[in-house]
Amino acid sequence: MTEADFIAALRTLPLHPGAHDLTDDAAHLGDLVLTKDMIVEGVHFLGNDPPADVAWKLVATNLSDLAAKGAEPVGVMLGVPIGDDAWDRAFLAGLDAVLRSFACPLLGGDTVKLPPHAPRLLSLTALGRSAHAPRRDGAKAGDALWVTGTIGDAGAGLAIARGGDGPAALLNRYRRPTPRLAEGQALAPLVHAMMDVSDGLLIDATRMAAASGLAVTIDLADVPLSEALRTFGHDALTAATAGDDYELLFACDTTPPVAATRIGTFAAGAGLTLLNAGRAIPLPERLGYQH
Amino acid sequence: MTEADFIAALRTLPLHPGAHDLTDDAAHLGDLVLTKDMIVEGVHFLGNDPPADVAWKLVATNLSDLAAKGAEPVGVMLGVPIGDDAWDRAFLAGLDAVLRSFACPLLGGDTVKLPPHAPRLLSLTALGRSAHAPRRDGAKAGDALWVTGTIGDAGAGLAIARGGDGPAALLNRYRRPTPRLAEGQALAPLVHAMMDVSDGLLIDATRMAAASGLAVTIDLADVPLSEALRTFGHDALTAATAGDDYELLFACDTTPPVAATRIGTFAAGAGLTLLNAGRAIPLPERLGYQH
Repeated sequence: MTEADFIAALRTLPLHPGAHDLTDDAAHLGDLVLTKDMIVEGVHFLGNDPPADVAWKLVATNLSDLAAKGAEPVGVMLGVPIGDDAWDRAFLAGLDAVLRSFACPLLGGDTVKLPPHAPRLLSLTALGRSAHAPRRDGAKAGDALWVTGTIGDAGAGLAIARGGDGPAALLNRYRRPTPRLAEGQALAPLVHAMMDVSDGLLIDATRMAAASGLAVTIDLADVPLSEALRTFGHDALTAATAGDDYELLFACDTTPPVAATRIGTFAAGAGLTLLNAGRAIPLPERLGYQH
Repeated sequence: MTEADFIAALRTLPLHPGAHDLTDDAAHLGDLVLTKDMIVEGVHFLGNDPPADVAWKLVATNLSDLAAKGAEPVGVMLGVPIGDDAWDRAFLAGLDAVLRSFACPLLGGDTVKLPPHAPRLLSLTALGRSAHAPRRDGAKAGDALWVTGTIGDAGAGLAIARGGDGPAALLNRYRRPTPRLAEGQALAPLVHAMMDVSDGLLIDATRMAAASGLAVTIDLADVPLSEALRTFGHDALTAATAGDDYELLFACDTTPPVAATRIGTFAAGAGLTLLNAGRAIPLPERLGYQH
């Protein structure tokens, strides 16, 4: 089954009201926000990625889901296969670094042994607290679309991790993303909709528009690119379809109180319209990573 | 690294106070109880186990950890690989059955695709609420040791699942364990220590005694065995070292308000003493499943 089919089938099972009918990246229990992600060797990370970076990314990507809810991290439940001493020690060092960096303690978890030659699969459930957890479906016609940070760096970093040449700063953006926790907490009370960019700016913005029952227009010329990415040679369209950014994408009708770039607008209708410096351009075949 | 080494290393990381220094099966956030277990094909379940039973066991074993805390289930966060239509549909049917059976809704989760030929790894975080969550380290000298239900049925069921002949009732005890939620809720305010029997009665009782700084004596003649197990031919020692029972093991100084069997006593000292109808017998080489 595809992910969409499987989730549709899950919706026929007994669901908690805080599951929001499985339409969002996080669940709620009172002011607790819960999110769970699994990552698989060979799918979500490369077999030769440093284990410390795998630990970092596992935690950081879950905390990014909390950031999109304006949540402060409470703790994480970790599931990890063990058995290879060098890998395990390096993983623990990365886990220590990421938990300290984002002031997120370990709550518990489970370890397992894998059969020989099995790819590693790691699992994390992250818990946070948020008084104002925005969803992705609340954008209003007339809202502007904003994004924090720069887009596409991680996509270039993935190309470098796969054996390309390029600056360590871009590789680092792929391997050690920064969840925008402080930004998320500042934005949550003000925005109409918010999510993190994990599958690609264009596809994630399209999902926000669809969930909100609106059309969205994005001007590629406004998409924030780092100097390092421009030098690397990736253009805005490549950046906006690359994914793994873990920046915050949000809809609001005021100037946000954090560093962010206005990249588009919501209006009545449906679908994505792409501009380049004000002129409409055709949509690319692929808007981002499709599950 | 071994599980013990890995957990010792985790203790040097930032821990939440509710992690109880990673000495227990569950963590706490206020009156919320959290537990996480992963199961791996070829390790925790067999490749030819029916997918509906895999779903049942994944949920039921986590709910058993909640039962040992006297918790009422609140919801579960599921992590599951998808992609094989027949497997996925059968898994969903089993998931539906187990969630309905124990009134536990789905809160959220994640799906992943695995590389070809990778063994399945499933993950669950279960949340419950308990006003009086007992730990495993509170047994007192003079307490009796009690256990719910019957012991060893699942061990016989595993032998049957591996290709042996035997009654469906025993196989069912291995594939579809029953978390003792009502018993756990009734016992939690009264017991001094409680845990579920997952690795084997003898090893789990020894762990409760060690955590409590006490010695424990168990009389094998008192270990409750089902008629089906006696007919199958497994003796009490086999039963008490088999594991996968998911019965509740508890220490208390009163007669419990649920159906349970008194199988031993705690006293000052350390270690396990085994009796058979009052006469001391040597300990077996293996007390249960060691991680």
